[in-house]
Amino acid sequence: MTADPFALTDDLWGLTNLPYAVASAQDWSPQVVSRLGGHVVGIAGLAAADGHRKWARAWSTPSLNAFLEQGPSSWQAARRWLQQLLSDDRRRDFVRPHLRPLDAVELHLAVDVADYVDFYASEHHATNVGKIFRPDGAALTPNWKHLPIGYHGRAGTVVVSGTDIVRPVGQRKTPADAAPQFGPSVRLDIEAEVGFVVGGETELGERVGVDRADEHIFGVGLFNDWSARDLQAWEYVPLGPFLGKSFASSLSAWITPMAALKEARIALPQQDPQPLPYLRGLEGAFGLDLALEVRLNGTLVSQPPYAQMYWGPGQMLAHLTVNGARLRNGDLFASGTVSGPEPQQRGSLLELSWSGSEPIRLEDGTERSFLQDGDEVTITATAPAVGGGRIALGEVSGRILPARD
Amino acid sequence: MTADPFALTDDLWGLTNLPYAVASAQDWSPQVVSRLGGHVVGIAGLAAADGHRKWARAWSTPSLNAFLEQGPSSWQAARRWLQQLLSDDRRRDFVRPHLRPLDAVELHLAVDVADYVDFYASEHHATNVGKIFRPDGAALTPNWKHLPIGYHGRAGTVVVSGTDIVRPVGQRKTPADAAPQFGPSVRLDIEAEVGFVVGGETELGERVGVDRADEHIFGVGLFNDWSARDLQAWEYVPLGPFLGKSFASSLSAWITPMAALKEARIALPQQDPQPLPYLRGLEGAFGLDLALEVRLNGTLVSQPPYAQMYWGPGQMLAHLTVNGARLRNGDLFASGTVSGPEPQQRGSLLELSWSGSEPIRLEDGTERSFLQDGDEVTITATAPAVGGGRIALGEVSGRILPARD
Repeated sequence: MTADPFALTDDLWGLTNLPYAVASAQDWSPQVVSRLGGHVVGIAGLAAADGHRKWARAWSTPSLNAFLEQGPSSWQAARRWLQQLLSDDRRRDFVRPHLRPLDAVELHLAVDVADYVDFYASEHHATNVGKIFRPDGAALTPNWKHLPIGYHGRAGTVVVSGTDIVRPVGQRKTPADAAPQFGPSVRLDIEAEVGFVVGGETELGERVGVDRADEHIFGVGLFNDWSARDLQAWEYVPLGPFLGKSFASSLSAWITPMAALKEARIALPQQDPQPLPYLRGLEGAFGLDLALEVRLNGTLVSQPPYAQMYWGPGQMLAHLTVNGARLRNGDLFASGTVSGPEPQQRGSLLELSWSGSEPIRLEDGTERSFLQDGDEVTITATAPAVGGGRIALGEVSGRILPARD
Repeated sequence: MTADPFALTDDLWGLTNLPYAVASAQDWSPQVVSRLGGHVVGIAGLAAADGHRKWARAWSTPSLNAFLEQGPSSWQAARRWLQQLLSDDRRRDFVRPHLRPLDAVELHLAVDVADYVDFYASEHHATNVGKIFRPDGAALTPNWKHLPIGYHGRAGTVVVSGTDIVRPVGQRKTPADAAPQFGPSVRLDIEAEVGFVVGGETELGERVGVDRADEHIFGVGLFNDWSARDLQAWEYVPLGPFLGKSFASSLSAWITPMAALKEARIALPQQDPQPLPYLRGLEGAFGLDLALEVRLNGTLVSQPPYAQMYWGPGQMLAHLTVNGARLRNGDLFASGTVSGPEPQQRGSLLELSWSGSEPIRLEDGTERSFLQDGDEVTITATAPAVGGGRIALGEVSGRILPARD
């Protein structure tokens, strides 16, 4: 017998969470769902049965994009409706037919990703990478504290958590090599990041000020920006990362709405020098207190604190659009690797093994500098819940398959 | 009276061209069209009337993507059908109701752009930019002759030719500035490029070998990668161009199928050192003999020869996918600025004015180093036609509007 879906033992997936995903089941075509404890909530069917046709229509589609288009007032109203419905004891028999145990559904990529931008917003990560990649120069480039550095990634290779990752092949050349070598990456890495899902289209030429972050940032997912360090090191000057990143990036199936993270909003670390006015904001220059954990084949290898990030998501959005670049429903931007000041808070193997010079030890006794075929990486996180306790973010995991011939 | 649409005075838009676009008219919803001389051909309606339902269905949509999905055998068969139909004197009365004068239609962006990648494939351009941006180092980075350098751009800001371009604002900092300045770009530039439209989806982890270029490269359009050099110079180290490019990139309305460019296929310049095997190909390592012209407010300012490009489009596609990055219908990759060896063959104002030190003179007597508000840039091109003569590629044009407050 399945336990009572309404009997929750903690807040992790309770009424203060209510994340979104896209799921299919034997009798469900892919559609937008929510989650309560160990059950998936068929909100498309529930909304239809409860007379909310606008939500039912958007949630009956196989991506969040139609709901993203409805904007913040619809997002907020839908959340209030769902919280009330699921907390009303008298309506449990109304809700119950729309619940499925988690293991009875298949989860899909929740967002039809429009444009994907990756930032570089952790001072600790950027400093570590600078020291490793450019040992003879300053760790941070002169622009780093003036703007959130970012670049566009490949939207078409963003995949849902659980998707196997084929080891990429390509060119690499170390200073010791006379010519570039070709073959499978030998420095395959992770980047533990947080992704932000955007809703609401803007016009070409329009800027989204930092204090308008809540109009457009719908929610967050955990993100693993798989990185082939050897490919990246050889290709990235002068136009930035390309094939070292574009083979795959994994996004959690569950997208946590920003409304569930109100208690996690914190001040950013002191920004010195003070950024230009378009990056300052009373409401928009916020940080998030998310506690990440990175596991490699089950061993906890890092606990990156998102609270330490230098640039906030509202600042990233303001920067992304300050030149008039328009937003589309389903735009995704990610924070860049989350690394804290301590060695065990680093969000990439590049940093954890200090470019291979200090391999980390797993619980099975083996050592890792970079990923081996068969390795599985899982990133999880929790955040303070509204009203107390903690909520979970959806995990992002992936396993490495050998390179193809 | 409109002239006889079938009486053509040259080959530029004749039966050996037959490009595709998306157009709407008073009695046409946006749909895929072709062109014969000064007339637009409503191929969706023609295909339906002639019993070709698969093409009619794809062409009745407001983008080329559904047709791109059908793959090369359908592309070739459709071209043969259309060439036969339009060259058959007995069928002119059948065709005529499906023709509209060019000035009776509105042209739209032909492709729903999935991912957009910009390459850097001209040795002359890369050398010029290297000398200007990195005067103390080697002009070409060590990787340049080993791989076609590229990076992802913003798909959502690719706009159709004719769209006004709002001058972007953002941060810039010259070495003389103590701190970054904020405001409208003062070094707004063009990049005359050729864009390649991709059809046919591939799987994550799959590589598209260089000799499979013709399976996936559907056609070409002229492309202007507007660039704010001051924003770009301050932001681009270490992760590449971002806001200096992402405000807008313009694509010609007309996409010329590769089948119309068979006569334009030429050998690539000698590649030394020889590239790695995945970039070599009997069929796929080809160049294209396209003669570009760049006009600024009507003055011919440059004649970039595409035939001089170091890396070919088949090589770019092979490189783009060598790491297993998948393709989607509507992917777009551009060549990077087309510059030849001569000063008057440079495809950007950065090069033409040598970073502002040698302004160019326009026919109205004024000088330009970079673009002023109100300036209009038009890029055109022709190519050898199959069977003789020359065909035209669709122009890409745009006018600069002042920055918004």
